[in-house]
Amino acid sequence: MTMVNLSLTEAYSLAHQVLRGNGFSEEHATVVARNVTNGERDGCASHGLWRLLGIVDTLRKGKVSPDAVPVVTDSAPAIVKADAGGAFSLLAFEQALPLLIEKTRHCGIAALAINRCVHFSALFADIEPLTDAGLVGYACTPSHAWVAPAGGTLPLFGTNPIAFGWPRGERPPFIFDMATSAAARGEIQLHLRAGKPIPEGWGVDSDGQPSTDPQAVLDGAMLTFGGHKGSAFAAMVELLAGPLIGDMTSAESLAWDDGAGGLPYGGELILAFDPTRFLGQEAHVHLARAETLFDAMQSQGARLPGERRFVARAKAEQEGVVITRTLYDDICALR
Amino acid sequence: MTMVNLSLTEAYSLAHQVLRGNGFSEEHATVVARNVTNGERDGCASHGLWRLLGIVDTLRKGKVSPDAVPVVTDSAPAIVKADAGGAFSLLAFEQALPLLIEKTRHCGIAALAINRCVHFSALFADIEPLTDAGLVGYACTPSHAWVAPAGGTLPLFGTNPIAFGWPRGERPPFIFDMATSAAARGEIQLHLRAGKPIPEGWGVDSDGQPSTDPQAVLDGAMLTFGGHKGSAFAAMVELLAGPLIGDMTSAESLAWDDGAGGLPYGGELILAFDPTRFLGQEAHVHLARAETLFDAMQSQGARLPGERRFVARAKAEQEGVVITRTLYDDICALR
Repeated sequence: MTMVNLSLTEAYSLAHQVLRGNGFSEEHATVVARNVTNGERDGCASHGLWRLLGIVDTLRKGKVSPDAVPVVTDSAPAIVKADAGGAFSLLAFEQALPLLIEKTRHCGIAALAINRCVHFSALFADIEPLTDAGLVGYACTPSHAWVAPAGGTLPLFGTNPIAFGWPRGERPPFIFDMATSAAARGEIQLHLRAGKPIPEGWGVDSDGQPSTDPQAVLDGAMLTFGGHKGSAFAAMVELLAGPLIGDMTSAESLAWDDGAGGLPYGGELILAFDPTRFLGQEAHVHLARAETLFDAMQSQGARLPGERRFVARAKAEQEGVVITRTLYDDICALR
Repeated sequence: MTMVNLSLTEAYSLAHQVLRGNGFSEEHATVVARNVTNGERDGCASHGLWRLLGIVDTLRKGKVSPDAVPVVTDSAPAIVKADAGGAFSLLAFEQALPLLIEKTRHCGIAALAINRCVHFSALFADIEPLTDAGLVGYACTPSHAWVAPAGGTLPLFGTNPIAFGWPRGERPPFIFDMATSAAARGEIQLHLRAGKPIPEGWGVDSDGQPSTDPQAVLDGAMLTFGGHKGSAFAAMVELLAGPLIGDMTSAESLAWDDGAGGLPYGGELILAFDPTRFLGQEAHVHLARAETLFDAMQSQGARLPGERRFVARAKAEQEGVVITRTLYDDICALR
């Protein structure tokens, strides 16, 4: 396969150009281009430059606003709301972040509800600015109804990712960001494209029977990770980032899409905790306890979540990123 | 097996008598007796009357205070702290609850950190008072280091339960409460007593090899549910209900126990969200969306978490509870 090597600046410029060329406002193009460049940089190709294809496709289908200006509301002492107005979540997040941080430092814990946003980005990107600020972060969002609840066989939940981050001072933060489905939908699509069966446990066909046929599972239902426990977490995400914040469940998002094949639409909930507010002057003592935990994980060979991402980042900052010529050409064709 | 049928009043009186007889203060005896009676009533025998054996054992080993008076502190606009002073968590929770609810209604979201508590009770009991108040609840606590992180083979995490609850007005709430380990430690002990092998995936022996021998796994390490994803949640519990609130990790709790075999000692974090504060006058519209989700789960045969518990409760309120004569005699012998 022919590959193309891009510096991070080149990757960003390409993404920005594609987004602007398709009508996204400067503000949206900037945050979206930065997001997909960072995904590629961090070795997370599924949230990297190829996302531009789906982003532009969703725009052309009329399923995302290219220029809505987010409206940030101080909704309660510990609640910020950001109405994305049908645009992607990222600009709303960026504009609401300072107030979220301010409220967290004052109250100890605070929530940001992003509403009416189209969502394509990894939650990792919404956690890292919090850990950079020395805060603990938690985020979740529904998606489209693709996943059956444990005990059922019909799609109802989204892939419903949950992310969590812990600040580590000068070291890269501890961050996990994972779907509550057994696999990402993109992984099933990749198996389909490669003509490979998927592992057992990823999904059922439209008769509700376990299947390793990727197309059958895409037409049937995906399953949650970890059986009924994963299913309970998936339901929690529906509730927290759906009804609690006055936004859509994954079933409502898919109904709203109405067969267009656009990206999920709805809400995202972000929580932030200030260790200093919880712990006062003793904070450093207790944050050291967390380091002891991480050391005990690593010394027995367990990886810290997010570790690989920061290794990939350091490499990409030196060497740029590498994508296939096909993807590069597909992206260039969108300009 | 000979069984003994007790009315709920009889079960409570027996528990209360045992606790008072062993030196627990009236305040602690009341909340602990109510908790174990409620566990039995709800068909959750693992958190029912048999817990009295471990409770009295822990007291006799000097590993729990029988009479510490909790100190509740208004720590930040959205943080309540309750120092249990080395006693069980329940009285601290009860005394801090009104301030947690008040802060949640004011701020939208608030946290309760219970510190220096010995923990034996299901988190379900700390969620239900929140859903009864129309709030959404979330709770977690570390335990003793019995569980290996994914990628490792040495015990580091506790069984680290996470509970979540959603209010449903007149209907029983949606509540899940589950260990992030593949199985509860008590289930492994029950297999040992019954001379039965445990399922694969529950644990490894002290050489780090997968094992179905319950004793080998008790001496080795339990595993998390759902592989690396469950492991990430287990780590999150260590951090949120450990260092974030200035309390012990599961490894520190086990070290503090120092071989005595007492119950876990440390902290618990409880979060509460007020849907009315998030949603204003539109709350009922969005809470109805949650009911649509629950209906879609149940109509395809998926059970709602907590469902069985409320069925058992209704039955026990009519017919009382039934325990084995052996357990009854063991409890009576503690008086």
